Amino acid sequence: MKLPGQEESDVSSASKNVPTGELDSGPGSGLSPDGPLDTESRELEVPKDLPLFIQLNELLGWPHAPEWKETGRWVLFEEKLEVGAGRWSAPHVPTVALPSLQKLRNLLAKGLVLLDCPALSLQELTEQVTRVESLSPELRGKLKALLLQRPQHLIQTPCTSPCWRSANLREASQEEEAPLKEQHQNPLRQKFPPGAEAGAVLAGQLGFLEQPLGVFVRLRDPVVLGPLIEVPLPSRFFCLLLGPPTLGRGYHEMGRAVAILLSDLQFQWRVRRASSLHDLLAALDAFLEEVTVLPPGRWDPTARIPPLKCLPSEHKRLSSQLRVAKGPSVRRRTPAEDRHGRRQHAANPELRRTGRLFGGLVQDVRRKASWYPSDFLDALHPQCVSAVLYVYLATVTNAITFGGLLGEATDGAQGVLESFLGTAVTGAAFCLTAGQPLTILSSTGPVLVFERLLFSFSRDHSLDYLPFRLWVGIWVAIFCLVLVATEASVLVRYFTRFTEEGFCALISLIFIYDAVGKMLTLTRAYPIRRPGSPAYGCLCQYPDTGGNESQWTSTNSKDRDDILSMDLGLVNASLLPPPECAQRGGHPRGPGCHTVPDIAFFSILLFLTSFLFAMALKHVKTSRFFPSVVRKMLGDFSSVLAILLGCGLDAFLGLATPKLMVPREFKPTLPGRGWLVSPFGANPWWLSVAAALPALLLSILIFMDQQITGVILNRAEYRLQKGAGFHLDLFCVAVLMLLTSVLGLPWYVSATVISLAHMDSLRRESRACAPGEAPSFLGIREQRLSGLAVFILTGISIFLAPILKFIPMPLLYGIFLYMGVTAISSIQFTKRVQLLLIPAKHQPDLLFLRHVPLSRVHLFTAIQLACLGLLWIIKSTPAAIIFPIMLLGLVGVRKALEWVFSPQELLWLDEPMPEKERNIPEKGMEPEYSFSGSDSEDSELMYQPKAPEINISVN
Amino acid sequence: MKLPGQEESDVSSASKNVPTGELDSGPGSGLSPDGPLDTESRELEVPKDLPLFIQLNELLGWPHAPEWKETGRWVLFEEKLEVGAGRWSAPHVPTVALPSLQKLRNLLAKGLVLLDCPALSLQELTEQVTRVESLSPELRGKLKALLLQRPQHLIQTPCTSPCWRSANLREASQEEEAPLKEQHQNPLRQKFPPGAEAGAVLAGQLGFLEQPLGVFVRLRDPVVLGPLIEVPLPSRFFCLLLGPPTLGRGYHEMGRAVAILLSDLQFQWRVRRASSLHDLLAALDAFLEEVTVLPPGRWDPTARIPPLKCLPSEHKRLSSQLRVAKGPSVRRRTPAEDRHGRRQHAANPELRRTGRLFGGLVQDVRRKASWYPSDFLDALHPQCVSAVLYVYLATVTNAITFGGLLGEATDGAQGVLESFLGTAVTGAAFCLTAGQPLTILSSTGPVLVFERLLFSFSRDHSLDYLPFRLWVGIWVAIFCLVLVATEASVLVRYFTRFTEEGFCALISLIFIYDAVGKMLTLTRAYPIRRPGSPAYGCLCQYPDTGGNESQWTSTNSKDRDDILSMDLGLVNASLLPPPECAQRGGHPRGPGCHTVPDIAFFSILLFLTSFLFAMALKHVKTSRFFPSVVRKMLGDFSSVLAILLGCGLDAFLGLATPKLMVPREFKPTLPGRGWLVSPFGANPWWLSVAAALPALLLSILIFMDQQITGVILNRAEYRLQKGAGFHLDLFCVAVLMLLTSVLGLPWYVSATVISLAHMDSLRRESRACAPGEAPSFLGIREQRLSGLAVFILTGISIFLAPILKFIPMPLLYGIFLYMGVTAISSIQFTKRVQLLLIPAKHQPDLLFLRHVPLSRVHLFTAIQLACLGLLWIIKSTPAAIIFPIMLLGLVGVRKALEWVFSPQELLWLDEPMPEKERNIPEKGMEPEYSFSGSDSEDSELMYQPKAPEINISVN
Repeated sequence: MKLPGQEESDVSSASKNVPTGELDSGPGSGLSPDGPLDTESRELEVPKDLPLFIQLNELLGWPHAPEWKETGRWVLFEEKLEVGAGRWSAPHVPTVALPSLQKLRNLLAKGLVLLDCPALSLQELTEQVTRVESLSPELRGKLKALLLQRPQHLIQTPCTSPCWRSANLREASQEEEAPLKEQHQNPLRQKFPPGAEAGAVLAGQLGFLEQPLGVFVRLRDPVVLGPLIEVPLPSRFFCLLLGPPTLGRGYHEMGRAVAILLSDLQFQWRVRRASSLHDLLAALDAFLEEVTVLPPGRWDPTARIPPLKCLPSEHKRLSSQLRVAKGPSVRRRTPAEDRHGRRQHAANPELRRTGRLFGGLVQDVRRKASWYPSDFLDALHPQCVSAVLYVYLATVTNAITFGGLLGEATDGAQGVLESFLGTAVTGAAFCLTAGQPLTILSSTGPVLVFERLLFSFSRDHSLDYLPFRLWVGIWVAIFCLVLVATEASVLVRYFTRFTEEGFCALISLIFIYDAVGKMLTLTRAYPIRRPGSPAYGCLCQYPDTGGNESQWTSTNSKDRDDILSMDLGLVNASLLPPPECAQRGGHPRGPGCHTVPDIAFFSILLFLTSFLFAMALKHVKTSRFFPSVVRKMLGDFSSVLAILLGCGLDAFLGLATPKLMVPREFKPTLPGRGWLVSPFGANPWWLSVAAALPALLLSILIFMDQQITGVILNRAEYRLQKGAGFHLDLFCVAVLMLLTSVLGLPWYVSATVISLAHMDSLRRESRACAPGEAPSFLGIREQRLSGLAVFILTGISIFLAPILKFIPMPLLYGIFLYMGVTAISSIQFTKRVQLLLIPAKHQPDLLFLRHVPLSRVHLFTAIQLACLGLLWIIKSTPAAIIFPIMLLGLVGVRKALEWVFSPQELLWLDEPMPEKERNIPEKGMEPEYSFSGSDSEDSELMYQPKAPEINISVN
Repeated sequence: MKLPGQEESDVSSASKNVPTGELDSGPGSGLSPDGPLDTESRELEVPKDLPLFIQLNELLGWPHAPEWKETGRWVLFEEKLEVGAGRWSAPHVPTVALPSLQKLRNLLAKGLVLLDCPALSLQELTEQVTRVESLSPELRGKLKALLLQRPQHLIQTPCTSPCWRSANLREASQEEEAPLKEQHQNPLRQKFPPGAEAGAVLAGQLGFLEQPLGVFVRLRDPVVLGPLIEVPLPSRFFCLLLGPPTLGRGYHEMGRAVAILLSDLQFQWRVRRASSLHDLLAALDAFLEEVTVLPPGRWDPTARIPPLKCLPSEHKRLSSQLRVAKGPSVRRRTPAEDRHGRRQHAANPELRRTGRLFGGLVQDVRRKASWYPSDFLDALHPQCVSAVLYVYLATVTNAITFGGLLGEATDGAQGVLESFLGTAVTGAAFCLTAGQPLTILSSTGPVLVFERLLFSFSRDHSLDYLPFRLWVGIWVAIFCLVLVATEASVLVRYFTRFTEEGFCALISLIFIYDAVGKMLTLTRAYPIRRPGSPAYGCLCQYPDTGGNESQWTSTNSKDRDDILSMDLGLVNASLLPPPECAQRGGHPRGPGCHTVPDIAFFSILLFLTSFLFAMALKHVKTSRFFPSVVRKMLGDFSSVLAILLGCGLDAFLGLATPKLMVPREFKPTLPGRGWLVSPFGANPWWLSVAAALPALLLSILIFMDQQITGVILNRAEYRLQKGAGFHLDLFCVAVLMLLTSVLGLPWYVSATVISLAHMDSLRRESRACAPGEAPSFLGIREQRLSGLAVFILTGISIFLAPILKFIPMPLLYGIFLYMGVTAISSIQFTKRVQLLLIPAKHQPDLLFLRHVPLSRVHLFTAIQLACLGLLWIIKSTPAAIIFPIMLLGLVGVRKALEWVFSPQELLWLDEPMPEKERNIPEKGMEPEYSFSGSDSEDSELMYQPKAPEINISVN
């Protein structure tokens, strides 16, 4: 057997075949890969070459009916032609047997290499390729004719069925060299940016050849080679690998090897600059230096590996080559350091303290003011329209759900109408003035929970709720302004994942508990009639005997009911159902009059319907079914669709389920109050001062909720260009707090999930992407117009209110449960709780499990569970209202954890707290053994989820 | 850079270092892989070497505190030590960079290779390894001391937490060389069969060395090297790779490369037989010849590839080497041929026609008789006990479900008691006499459907059902005997997947339709009270005025109810609920007396509970949660648990849901009949002749159901040793048919799913398996005792009957739905219907999609859908009872498909019909282009599901 490189000595003998391009036989000279490695900045230059489309045309059917057929294509990944099925395979990571690469090297070393070949057409190229070869003129003619034969391409148009585009009956003549109509119509064409080039590889068995024939051509000027390539791109490279049938499938495999080499960016970069056969072979050898090897007995070479979600960057490849070149003296960052750096980098620069009163706010206003005109101009893109539609529907669903729940929690002090109005007004105002105008305001979970507690508190102490609430709002606005003035937002860095997860888990659990609790309350309001239960029987009794009998017969007396009454000997009573009885002036009497049967179980069914349907639709988004547009639509509008389905079911059966309360006209839900809340109402004057205490608690909550969301939205991975505005955002929230309190509307802060959805629908992505490659993220259309449009539409939707009264409450409870379950499933804490149930052997390959002992992971989870338990206990006592302080207490617990866990462990399970930045020496950040920080592990970071992990606002 | 093989010329210079073993420098001689390639049988000899445990001990902490730590281990797959987490990674396919293999080759070529080293202890080995080397005596001493230092192993015991086993405070002295207690306690030890050997690889940076040191040792006699290896296995190979720190992680990677090489069976085979350095390098080169290469830019070298479910066999590797050696002239089987061959091979040899009357039956009896004693002796294994428990519970669930449904379908002509009795009697009889005693008899879906149709037919024509049914049974037995006599079972080969799937899909759809239909019927029986519905009100009226008033006061007159009655002025009436009213001698009067509220919706809830819970529990089996025993239990007993949960819910609420009807004593469910059915009853005598017509239909059904199940159970992949008995099985079914008809019990045939579960619980598997490797299947404990025990237990369970009356019927409908959905999900037809909804881009990589154009796949699916639609229409007409003939018609449709589809297409989508065997020429079987049949595709067959695809009996 021969090993790669064994023929290195053949290079000089083969190079005499090279007719074009200067021959540079000095082994160290030219553009060898080690050439540019002198300064680090130069070396790390990533090859900027445009994508190369490589196509393998294979010669099939020899000797009976030889024809060329495109059987493979590459941009980044390989697509293989499924000959029988007439379809392209899914893109997969190309793999090739090592001997194929070695055989290819040998063939090229002995073969013909034309660099900067001046051919301008396929005809000319064919001349060049066949002329030089030591073939008899007859064979040369046969070969030329064969090469000019038009190949078969399988062009898959998206709408019509795939069809074979070819004219294999006759050979293509000179005038047919222009690209065909099919080629131009190829949808693949649109994938390539202008300037993209192609490479053609022709391989196969050819009976009349006695010697293997290997030709590699780099064209001086790329040219469209007629119908050779399925896409009419100008070809830069051309490779011919033909030979006698002794090698069997060898030529096909060598063709694949060339294609895989050409699809490698660094090989391409080298070959584009190669000036001799030697450079070409050196590029191949450099490629071999970097390949990974799969052992034969443990791997099936025919298995297809799906593309990785995240590929190592070319930068990294170059830097690792550099490391090899320079030796281990170049100290590299450990993964822990990388992670640390990333998190620190992610912490926004806007969170640096200025030290002046309102200094942060002034800075924010100054920064954002310069972008203000562009905030409107940047919105002129059709993508914004679809974003508006999507976010509008989500906002309305939220307004309905939270409004309905708030109405119930506060006995109608607030309701759906207030929710719509408040959402529209505050949202629009925020979009126009805020630091981060992509934020969507909403009555989030924590605020809803607090408002419910505040209401029960004021009810328990017989306070006039809305005036009390007004003073709480005034105080909250004052406290928030103090926080803005003192630049307290920089403290947000102390809220690590531990705090965020505790916050999110508590709120989610409250959601889940409340949803189930409300359903149980419903079954008490509509009791189930069990056999032997006393609540049986109901009669309709009329007030006095004399007068009614005449009234009786005067109305519709042919009634079944009346006949029965007479038959039973009833005189002043009938069996009319209670509502009709009351209509006719009677009184329903009996224990069974107040029970409405079937409602309890039907409500449970509605509850399950909306919950399960919303969950199922959410999963459709990641399933294989339906085109992606439909799938995205079903997933995005899962709660809207679940509510609509439930409403349909309810309307179909027509049962008297409890419905959403909506006022009949445009006035506050609470009867008898105007839009302005009176400052005192029935409350004593000193309550306006005492309200400062609950206001302090609410301020903590609002600060945490608002700023954690702010940090998540302004993360570095979203590549926001216009910067954040934490202080300005908090200032706006404070002002709007005042407004909503005065008008008796719900309170609003930034909502994480819906804001992220807003940003996500405004993503800018690269359009041209190779099959199998994920489109690359360019940034987000940062502007104020889409949000503004959403809230104007929400405001208009207030007139929708009359149709909202058809929505049964159990549906909203179901959506409530869905929100809680979705939120709690999204946090790492839940994953770690699940780990408690998974045997070590079956645990998923999570990054922190690779670096932290399982017992420590479990300990961390147990501590979190204990904190959560404590919070829950507090929430269940009469002191529930102080829970925001306890949430803040999580920051202290996190600090105390530094005594229990090592910095490395906390780094993997949580993230560092700001003070520790200085305390952890660089050594301390390094894992136990230095090798853990070396190349074999650091790209694990690739597998880290890029999506936000926290779903704090539970909406 | 240097390429592998470049140092081939160094071999001779390096080989002078080899002190032991004969030096055989002739390149073609010795045990080169091409040596034994002369006859095919010899070449295909698979290396039979025992598993080798390879451990990589890495030198860490140099220069401060050098210590050896086990950081990797291999048997088949690689396990990596997660240093930070202190756990072993999941087993994964080992990958290594090509340069590491090349550097290793260079190091070994220059280094020390000791073949058949006579060392008997670690001490001696250390002497040998260090003595020969050109080291100064001082360095040699330091190195020796280092090598004797005890390494750290992470031993994971299943119950306790993992802990570091080491004594790194002092160096191990001579007497400590005996393996440690921890090593013996290592649970990994049990994974290895006796005779297994180990290989130790020691690698790392060693500052005091100036030159890289590479030593490869093959011990003459394997010996336990003290605490070197975590498992006390005798070591056969020892490899030392140390060097100055210039190479950085290079030594670790070279160590991994050696380990990966040694874990390769063929490399091992060659190295065990190597007699010189040359052989060793040749083995390495042969390995390189077979490796697959992953290109650098498209693959992250740190990604871990999970083990493939199915590895290419060593046979295959050898044969592909042979092909390379012999060139393409060796014609290989195409994948289509392989598949064809496999299917044909799978068709049982017992299905060959003898041509004599009862010839097949005689053969079957003869074959099975010789195994009869062993059928009892082979049952003496504890595995049979757990199998009995599992199958018993499944059988009882089946008996309850089918019994309940049959009772309803036949208005109580049969019921749960008959179901238990019939199951026990026929099952036990079948186990004792049948050809395939692992079969479990059950009233399967098709027979249940037929029985229901037969009952409605006899009801519509006012026939006495059971006597009519007796004659049908008698005729069926006669027809079946005729089928046995004529060896009709060989016709089973005409039932291709097309027929099986049509059969299964129809029955499943009937199940689903019936389950939902029964729930809707329930809501009509227990109507929902809507607002304004007339069914309101109910009074309890007493027959005569005088007598009752005294009776009234004499009973408990302090009743709330009575007080209310008096208050309302009711004289001879009260508001008592209907049951109590009747108890007190009154008559419930009024439209509301017959409605029981809440039952309808509660029944739907119970229905959904059992269906969703059974589905969810079934999925637990394949989830990551819980230890595998618990997971298997939950999955296996999903329907039992779902029924129990539903019963608990029902009992908790205590509503009057419709329950399973169970007779109070041991007598037939139909009142007034004895255990023997009278031969005529009220029917005219000629009906006994006319019964032959429905019997013919039933015979077709029973033949199809029984024999399709038989074929599935006797498939070649189960490796049954004692052969099948199709004729004998059908004979037994016929006799039992007679018995059950006479006694008025349900009819029984073989049930696919439960029989497969029975076989699955009796699987014999190899115990010793490497981490990441699936245990290999050895066969099935074929015996008659486990089945017998199951049915004896079922018989005893008849006394359970009284507690069965607590099972609400909606639960059983839910299980019914679950069965239908599970059955229909298991067939390929469903997968193809789903494909209609999946855009081509997202379609899974199914084998038939690679070979058949999508439009043809859809056409095939559409034809199946049309057939199914036709069957459904027939089933919905009064002619429903003839549906077995229509099922048989599917065979004809399949035959006609040969005019529409090519043989290749049918091969991929279905399977060939027997006659075509001769008609398809070998050429015709080959796909379009000959290359499709070559190596690059044929192991795709590996991805074919091994599990039975058909779930025909829907139970």
